Amino acid sequence: MARVVEIDDAADPRLADFRDLARADRRPDRPGGRGLVLAEGTVVVRRLLASPYPPRALLGVARRVEDLAPDLAGVDVPAYVTDADTMAHVVGFHLNRGVLASADRAPTPDLAGLLAGARRVAVLEGVNDHENLGALFRNAAALGVDAVLVGPGCADPLYRRSVRVSMGHVLRVPFVPCDLDEAVAALRAAGFVLGALTPAGDPGAMAGLAGHERVALMLGAEGPGLSAAALAAADVRVRIPMAGDVDSLNVATAAAVAFHATAGVLVPGGRTGAP
Amino acid sequence: MARVVEIDDAADPRLADFRDLARADRRPDRPGGRGLVLAEGTVVVRRLLASPYPPRALLGVARRVEDLAPDLAGVDVPAYVTDADTMAHVVGFHLNRGVLASADRAPTPDLAGLLAGARRVAVLEGVNDHENLGALFRNAAALGVDAVLVGPGCADPLYRRSVRVSMGHVLRVPFVPCDLDEAVAALRAAGFVLGALTPAGDPGAMAGLAGHERVALMLGAEGPGLSAAALAAADVRVRIPMAGDVDSLNVATAAAVAFHATAGVLVPGGRTGAP
Repeated sequence: MARVVEIDDAADPRLADFRDLARADRRPDRPGGRGLVLAEGTVVVRRLLASPYPPRALLGVARRVEDLAPDLAGVDVPAYVTDADTMAHVVGFHLNRGVLASADRAPTPDLAGLLAGARRVAVLEGVNDHENLGALFRNAAALGVDAVLVGPGCADPLYRRSVRVSMGHVLRVPFVPCDLDEAVAALRAAGFVLGALTPAGDPGAMAGLAGHERVALMLGAEGPGLSAAALAAADVRVRIPMAGDVDSLNVATAAAVAFHATAGVLVPGGRTGAP
Repeated sequence: MARVVEIDDAADPRLADFRDLARADRRPDRPGGRGLVLAEGTVVVRRLLASPYPPRALLGVARRVEDLAPDLAGVDVPAYVTDADTMAHVVGFHLNRGVLASADRAPTPDLAGLLAGARRVAVLEGVNDHENLGALFRNAAALGVDAVLVGPGCADPLYRRSVRVSMGHVLRVPFVPCDLDEAVAALRAAGFVLGALTPAGDPGAMAGLAGHERVALMLGAEGPGLSAAALAAADVRVRIPMAGDVDSLNVATAAAVAFHATAGVLVPGGRTGAP
């Protein structure tokens, strides 16, 4: 069980993981950042505790920490309990979800090993908006995507806002940062068909992808889309048919439509469990 | 052509449509509100000017109003031009999109007339979040939905934030506020099959819906879902298959998946044009 520690001093040095989040956590992935994973709210903290990311500490109001007691049973970390005002002083703003957890980053999974156990993956390029990236991971988790290859120009999936918008699912869908050549080579070696989502694609090709054993869906940001190199690497270019003069969907929404349309037979719980 | 009027006084009474937006515009649909439609940014203002909503005025910085000159050619309204600081004083916050337009609401379209020309419609219940509602309209516009029936418990589609998140598409997808009985009766009279999206539905039924000439997709908010009455009124209950322990998608995302999966043969530009 986590060790519950009551704290009434916002300056307590044990709360360092949670201090000035809006500033210090701006880019936690960068060398100058703190390199932590931060989860907000009981639902996301619960997913963090069930993930491969090693928890460091919790900070919350009493009621929220109590809500998490079953999840904390086998977890040996401090759970700092304080009041909402002290918590707001520590994090630097009022946090209406009432509980936070910090964790260390986990080692990046081996790409070949990850693909060996996967049948549906997403390959992202230039998805540089943290909220879109978080929403995309949420949709990937819901719609049976086994892994995400995070290509060049993408935001950090473990940035606090991505974690929140993903509702913590970014902590359970394994992902690997990689460059495009590396991704394509590994996918080909593992027998994946590469489908690129692009407005210039074939709307009829989506259903064809669904029949393949292993499918990698390549997605670029709304606006710029995939690079010429990514399009050239694809086996097939697919398009979501759109009405009238509408030219695009939000990238996370387009991903959801494509994940669903190419899912084939979904095996509930059949994903590989780890990043 | 719109009459360009330079203004340097934030207190100028001609700017009343744009004043204190964060406060006065909180619920423009309510009797105590101002009852206006407000568009922000060149893309959304352009869609407003092409919509059936009668424009009243524009307010913007010179560059943004110039960008809109082609769209303003046949429009007889004042275009108030000022600098960014004066604009911020008028609206009450810094507006980085640089241009706003106001319009009057348009008469609600006749439900039976609207359905007569439609083949895919959405029926919403309890979608009370303005951003989700706006995103849903954007997805409806992109994926060939001809009309939206806005049922009980929904937010106002013409609230400023809904208009913005919809990227202005809420101004071109016709919608009718109605109660559930009214919606169901009108849909049955027009020969629609009613498909309710619910976690208790049949994942195999989605493809079947796509084959129907006229389909109404019923959607409730994430969490509460559709009411028992709405589920009872449906001809078929469908479900988006989900992986592992994920229990739901965002309602606008779920709608996009269902709109795409049931689109059948999409006729580009084939929607009825009016609300």
